[in-house]
Amino acid sequence: MKRYTVGELASLVDGEPVGEVDHLIGGVAPLDVAGPEDLSFVASRQYLPYLATTSAGVVLAPRALAGEVPASLSQILVRDPHIALAAILRHLFPSAAPPPGIHPTAIVAESARLGEGVSIGPYAVIGEEASLGSRVRVDAHTVIGEGASVGDDSWLHPHVTVYPGVRIGHRCVVRSGARLGSDGFGYVWSEGEHRKVPQVGGCIIADDVEIGANTTVDRGSIGDSAVGQGSKLDNLVHLGHNVRVGNRVLIVAQTGIAGSSSVGDGAVLGGQAGVGGHLTIGRGARVGAQAGVTGNVADGETVSGYPARPHREALRAQAALFRLPDILRRIQKIERALFAREERP
Amino acid sequence: MKRYTVGELASLVDGEPVGEVDHLIGGVAPLDVAGPEDLSFVASRQYLPYLATTSAGVVLAPRALAGEVPASLSQILVRDPHIALAAILRHLFPSAAPPPGIHPTAIVAESARLGEGVSIGPYAVIGEEASLGSRVRVDAHTVIGEGASVGDDSWLHPHVTVYPGVRIGHRCVVRSGARLGSDGFGYVWSEGEHRKVPQVGGCIIADDVEIGANTTVDRGSIGDSAVGQGSKLDNLVHLGHNVRVGNRVLIVAQTGIAGSSSVGDGAVLGGQAGVGGHLTIGRGARVGAQAGVTGNVADGETVSGYPARPHREALRAQAALFRLPDILRRIQKIERALFAREERP
Amino acid sequence: MKRYTVGELASLVDGEPVGEVDHLIGGVAPLDVAGPEDLSFVASRQYLPYLATTSAGVVLAPRALAGEVPASLSQILVRDPHIALAAILRHLFPSAAPPPGIHPTAIVAESARLGEGVSIGPYAVIGEEASLGSRVRVDAHTVIGEGASVGDDSWLHPHVTVYPGVRIGHRCVVRSGARLGSDGFGYVWSEGEHRKVPQVGGCIIADDVEIGANTTVDRGSIGDSAVGQGSKLDNLVHLGHNVRVGNRVLIVAQTGIAGSSSVGDGAVLGGQAGVGGHLTIGRGARVGAQAGVTGNVADGETVSGYPARPHREALRAQAALFRLPDILRRIQKIERALFAREERP
Repeated sequence: MKRYTVGELASLVDGEPVGEVDHLIGGVAPLDVAGPEDLSFVASRQYLPYLATTSAGVVLAPRALAGEVPASLSQILVRDPHIALAAILRHLFPSAAPPPGIHPTAIVAESARLGEGVSIGPYAVIGEEASLGSRVRVDAHTVIGEGASVGDDSWLHPHVTVYPGVRIGHRCVVRSGARLGSDGFGYVWSEGEHRKVPQVGGCIIADDVEIGANTTVDRGSIGDSAVGQGSKLDNLVHLGHNVRVGNRVLIVAQTGIAGSSSVGDGAVLGGQAGVGGHLTIGRGARVGAQAGVTGNVADGETVSGYPARPHREALRAQAALFRLPDILRRIQKIERALFAREERP
Repeated sequence: MKRYTVGELASLVDGEPVGEVDHLIGGVAPLDVAGPEDLSFVASRQYLPYLATTSAGVVLAPRALAGEVPASLSQILVRDPHIALAAILRHLFPSAAPPPGIHPTAIVAESARLGEGVSIGPYAVIGEEASLGSRVRVDAHTVIGEGASVGDDSWLHPHVTVYPGVRIGHRCVVRSGARLGSDGFGYVWSEGEHRKVPQVGGCIIADDVEIGANTTVDRGSIGDSAVGQGSKLDNLVHLGHNVRVGNRVLIVAQTGIAGSSSVGDGAVLGGQAGVGGHLTIGRGARVGAQAGVTGNVADGETVSGYPARPHREALRAQAALFRLPDILRRIQKIERALFAREERP
Repeated sequence: MKRYTVGELASLVDGEPVGEVDHLIGGVAPLDVAGPEDLSFVASRQYLPYLATTSAGVVLAPRALAGEVPASLSQILVRDPHIALAAILRHLFPSAAPPPGIHPTAIVAESARLGEGVSIGPYAVIGEEASLGSRVRVDAHTVIGEGASVGDDSWLHPHVTVYPGVRIGHRCVVRSGARLGSDGFGYVWSEGEHRKVPQVGGCIIADDVEIGANTTVDRGSIGDSAVGQGSKLDNLVHLGHNVRVGNRVLIVAQTGIAGSSSVGDGAVLGGQAGVGGHLTIGRGARVGAQAGVTGNVADGETVSGYPARPHREALRAQAALFRLPDILRRIQKIERALFAREERP
């Protein structure tokens, strides 16, 4: 791995080096396992104690904590260590160039359109009339259905399924095992059976979206399902048919959103949360982990619990819940004081 | 896309056309995005306001609301718009014929038995002694294990795994990434380790079953796991070993059922619900989304919450939960009125 | 299938045969479906009633219940029927030998190192510098990334993805659709977008680990994610980046653990449980199904509910919850008795 001086890394992140600027750094590690060639970082006061024993070659620290980092440690002071760390990681660990060209075992339909510089891995299958933008990378075993499209610089990891007609934007990342555009769960009860409602809508993934491993995004029933620009879905997430997720939304692992619900720009959904069908989660709203959302959530609101309520109200109710046995004892005492035996419930 | 007149579509669904019967329809869309060549629909009173502004060429509506649809709109009046819509969708969007025959890259064991008209996609692998009925469609990359069988007219989407010996009925649909017949989670603690209990039972999927993307159905430990006729499983569902699901059951996304539990005919399990092991969910029972079922559920009963209780009881308890802070205040007031200071808790 | 006498099976499990020792057994089945050639078992008193009607050829039973099994039934008395059953199943149903050698369609990088006796299935892809130990079995369609390693006697089922650099120990089993070493969910908010934090840590799976179908284990962000010796993960489990699971841990289906949390040796996590980020679950701790863990859990502690609390406390609170409507009535009665009308809330 290529190594960089502390001074080079400091200027990369617009940081202020403290200590020896010519020291060479070749890796990144947490404080407790970092060695003399590693950069490490401290993002908040609570991790300051680890600085006493770290062997890291240099430590990224927030300017706000400058005076509290031991002077013996080589430092790079920055406004936000998380942002600086991300930049340094991108610099130290540049993405490997994908294998160039089309693997001889890949099956690419004659009518498919391929942009320049595409990389298609072993056993990938690209359907009729599918379209891949420039520098798209399709890894081993990924299947892209008829008429689907993938924008420039997007990367589909191994074993992804893109169903026919799905549209994926530029610079997207789809991790292994994700299924985009599968049929939604739509049936009508008729003549003693659940009969399938054909799912003929689309599935539209905007630019800069990332989709986690084994996540499923169903196509629309009628009309489209959509994930907006810059949104990120973690692993094993489920979006039902006609779900519309806005821009820059975060959806943590194992969360599910039922059909026809919408999530506003900038909202954050914690892990294992569930959102019922036909609901609206407002812009900038926050849904707590494991919350069960059964009604609309207003813009900017934070909800948690089941059924999800405003977070403060939910916390108060939960706290009170654990005082219930005590409440019961107090009521019994009151009843003893107040009622004659025969009156007591 | 082929187009049909309003009159043709009306007679297809045994509906009563109101307005111009020769108008041509070529698509289906929600009220707010439908154009003059689209059919749209209104299923209940709450969506009537959208009719004022829709540009749809014709609207499916329930006879019960006949007088309330603006006369200016072309209509098809039916008993149940959902059922009529499903029929029209099937008509307008017929399933594409699968690619005929066996793709040259598919690997089909010599001892496998194939019905007439099977379609086997690129890189599919069909194991020894496996059996595919007539017109079975196996999409790209799907793996069918040794001795497994698939009934007539069933369709396995890309990237499905059918483990050895699994039996799938007629007219089933298995979506991408589903795993059928994987080993269950069975271990015994012996000599300081969790030791695997061999999982030697079967996994039997009856006719007309649909299984969602990335769903897992384990095989039996001893004896079989089974999903009954006409049942539908959504995405990311988990059925443990020896689970027995009856006929025409609906299981919504991300629900899990632990080993050896059974679900009666016609039951409905909401999304993200969990059912403990060795339990019985009765016929026609309903389990609310995110419910945690820790005991048997009687036929026809509706349960919700954690631990799951009869729905009405659960709702009452939840409502009371949010009154707890108020209850606490009232008790304090009573105590102040009733007890001298030294007596108070 | 090869058959064995009752006497042979009894000595295999160090058990005491009661009845005819030469009777031949060729299968294993639950009490209610077992026939005369099947072995069945009764593990606890609650299943004794089934013995009256079983047709099983022999029944494994605990010595503790010896007197209570009908004398007419052929028996094998053992200390622990579950352990004995596992041993008999392994004997009656030996694992099929994997197909020998490397399927001609498998793509194995020239720089990959293969141990003796490896079995590599159709369309598997083994990346540059990857390493497979002796007798490793890689099933159809599994993809092993650059530089990943798999220890002796491990078995990767079909459609598994092992991302680059992941290390898997000896005797592991990874079921279909599992994704090991995918990027974790790490973003920083900068200049109006969620920007990805490169995920450069490792993913280390120790010996004797089993991983369920469609489960995802993310690689570390910085530093490693790890699953310890002898731990077993069920289906559809999610482990976030830098999660560290100890030895001999059981994690039941659909459970999720957020980034940087750790689970101590011997802990058990029930199904659909969720553990927040940066938490510690102690050694031997037990987390109930669907629990939502929002704080550390001490060694040996059992927690349940949301937010997870010591199990006994959670049970008491849940029980009290359903008494709330009654509590409310009693408070109203007290208030009526105590306060003049104008004082009542």
